[in-house]
Amino acid sequence: MTATDPVANLQTLIRCPSVTPDEGGALSALEAMLAPLGFAVERMVAREEGTPDVENLYARLGTEGPHLMFAGHTDVVPPGDAAAWKHPPFAATLDGGDLYGRGAVDMKGGIACFVAAVARSIARHGAPRGSLSFLITGDEEGPSINGTEKLLKWAEERGERWNACLVGEPTNPDQLGDMIKVGRRGSLSGRITVQGVQGHVAYPHLADNPLRGLLQLTHALMDPPFDHGTDLFPPSNLEVTSIDTGNTAVNVIPARASAAFNIRFSNVWNEETLKAEIRRRLDIAAASGPLRPGRPPVDYTIVWPERVGQVFLTRDEALISSLSEAIAAVTGQEPSLSTTGGTSDARFIKDYCPVVEFGLVGQTMHKVDERVAISDLEKLTEIYQTFIESWFRHAEA
Amino acid sequence: MTATDPVANLQTLIRCPSVTPDEGGALSALEAMLAPLGFAVERMVAREEGTPDVENLYARLGTEGPHLMFAGHTDVVPPGDAAAWKHPPFAATLDGGDLYGRGAVDMKGGIACFVAAVARSIARHGAPRGSLSFLITGDEEGPSINGTEKLLKWAEERGERWNACLVGEPTNPDQLGDMIKVGRRGSLSGRITVQGVQGHVAYPHLADNPLRGLLQLTHALMDPPFDHGTDLFPPSNLEVTSIDTGNTAVNVIPARASAAFNIRFSNVWNEETLKAEIRRRLDIAAASGPLRPGRPPVDYTIVWPERVGQVFLTRDEALISSLSEAIAAVTGQEPSLSTTGGTSDARFIKDYCPVVEFGLVGQTMHKVDERVAISDLEKLTEIYQTFIESWFRHAEA
Repeated sequence: MTATDPVANLQTLIRCPSVTPDEGGALSALEAMLAPLGFAVERMVAREEGTPDVENLYARLGTEGPHLMFAGHTDVVPPGDAAAWKHPPFAATLDGGDLYGRGAVDMKGGIACFVAAVARSIARHGAPRGSLSFLITGDEEGPSINGTEKLLKWAEERGERWNACLVGEPTNPDQLGDMIKVGRRGSLSGRITVQGVQGHVAYPHLADNPLRGLLQLTHALMDPPFDHGTDLFPPSNLEVTSIDTGNTAVNVIPARASAAFNIRFSNVWNEETLKAEIRRRLDIAAASGPLRPGRPPVDYTIVWPERVGQVFLTRDEALISSLSEAIAAVTGQEPSLSTTGGTSDARFIKDYCPVVEFGLVGQTMHKVDERVAISDLEKLTEIYQTFIESWFRHAEA
Repeated sequence: MTATDPVANLQTLIRCPSVTPDEGGALSALEAMLAPLGFAVERMVAREEGTPDVENLYARLGTEGPHLMFAGHTDVVPPGDAAAWKHPPFAATLDGGDLYGRGAVDMKGGIACFVAAVARSIARHGAPRGSLSFLITGDEEGPSINGTEKLLKWAEERGERWNACLVGEPTNPDQLGDMIKVGRRGSLSGRITVQGVQGHVAYPHLADNPLRGLLQLTHALMDPPFDHGTDLFPPSNLEVTSIDTGNTAVNVIPARASAAFNIRFSNVWNEETLKAEIRRRLDIAAASGPLRPGRPPVDYTIVWPERVGQVFLTRDEALISSLSEAIAAVTGQEPSLSTTGGTSDARFIKDYCPVVEFGLVGQTMHKVDERVAISDLEKLTEIYQTFIESWFRHAEA
């Protein structure tokens, strides 16, 4: 049977230099693995003015429900200084029990294992009763404009519906089996600008130092905390990422100053309620505060970027327990359910079906000498195979 | 008698384009006014590596005590866009009761009036019983490195001693007679840099956002106030003049951030006690605060510039009352005694003798269309003459 060896699958994929937005042969290689297994493979090129075209892939085995989707990306971040690598980043060299190469864990490794798991399951039990699909983008590490979001929409318009999705991103901090991601915090950025009145530091009453107002506002954003977290979410956290004034004259009160911030927020909030809370805090701090006694309110504006990472939490018990039990069976470890970390393409998928994430160990992702233990590839393949079979059993019941 | 007309004196001085550090003929013109009155005039060129040489002037009439010094500067700030002026900035044009030109009030006008006052007094009563001197620099509007400070030292080394000094800077906010400056607040600048740990905003526990520490530190510098002012001093006031980070990545916690500040301080403090108080506040805020609960102390450094403006208050009753009475006699107005505003060369003179400041109305100083009312020139000359005669009478008694 083809494609049952995750190591061989991964070597094939790593040798395709698919740095975003280049396809680099990676999707064609994946197509060559899936077609012989019976998948109907389609390639979809996403376009948007001002951005490079990006190739994506959708492959489905079966025509009936229930329908399980595996999602991921074949694009990789640039290798950086290739000379700094122990082995060339696109050579897929085996060395000391590890397989080296850009994308080894993020996330060609996850794809290679899922393909092997599917191949093994078909070899043993035949095609699953239902449908299995791969939704693979070439624009996850880039701006994510011509990737998963467009691919989902395209597939939905063709009548595709899914019951559950597993994303194969590297979710384990230390060892395989540590952590399933069952949701993600939201991410909201903003920039506050305070308009003051320029003047000489010796005559502060004739000026209005915008930094006084800005410090009151930013302080109010950081204290008190927005929440104390929930069952599966850590507390929301806001960081002021930059304050800039650009005033080089030490005897001059500047005319304006601005601050950028980003908040990673729990499911206590959604975009609308969070923006309202931020506005409420800013308005209170603008109206009065210890740094501007007796002054009129701070003259501030706030700008929100267009794209907001929405918070989500997956509550599909069958999906989560199928995966958890498979992990425990193979690794002997109970994975923790987590919503920590940055955003992922799961934020798009959650609008179509319940989604969880589980893959390799993330420690070397985006770094020089990205690599994966060969034993982990074998274990992850076993986990994925156990999960697939268990999920379809659950779905059938 | 020569030089008795302040308007003619001022026109002569304005027509010398003495933009710092250029002498522009202004000191020579002054010398030509003083020598015929009997002054022994000396020119002193101050030099320092890395700075332009600057000419200064010292002129003394008489050899015995008591000794009254008049201090000031003939250098002026640049005119800016000369085409924006109603009259050319160095033409000294009379128009509608005003005399236009760069330096009209700051402070060739003060010099012109004091020269006229001396000339009139000599004409009427002969030379004063004691000594009168002019200590005039060409580096007040510039870095003030090759100016009054060096000139005082040079004169002291030659045995010069003074009993009192009047600086002819424009001290009146609205009209002649408003305000005598009897001291100045000190001025201290500093720059705080906080070293944090860079990281991803999604993993704040792995990073240490330097802006959290910096906000705690700057807040502690602004609140509570350093003091509530004293009899003749307004409250000390600290302004944060710039906070800069330069981080353009909204998902990155920056590695470091810095803030510049300047404090104008009352005579509750001196440089040493004030620096100690600032350090004390910073250390407390660094150790703990609402924005960094449970974190180790903020890793900060503070840099002080070499030059600090020292605070001072003149308590010479005879000097202050001679001047106040002269002002009241001519203008009918009791001047207020003040220590407000920026620094001046009086900060150097106060180490040699009691010093006060009184001159023209400052409203147009450093601006386009700098100008002085001709009537003010006449009145200031009368005030100066009355003051000179009164001061020597007091000093003799």
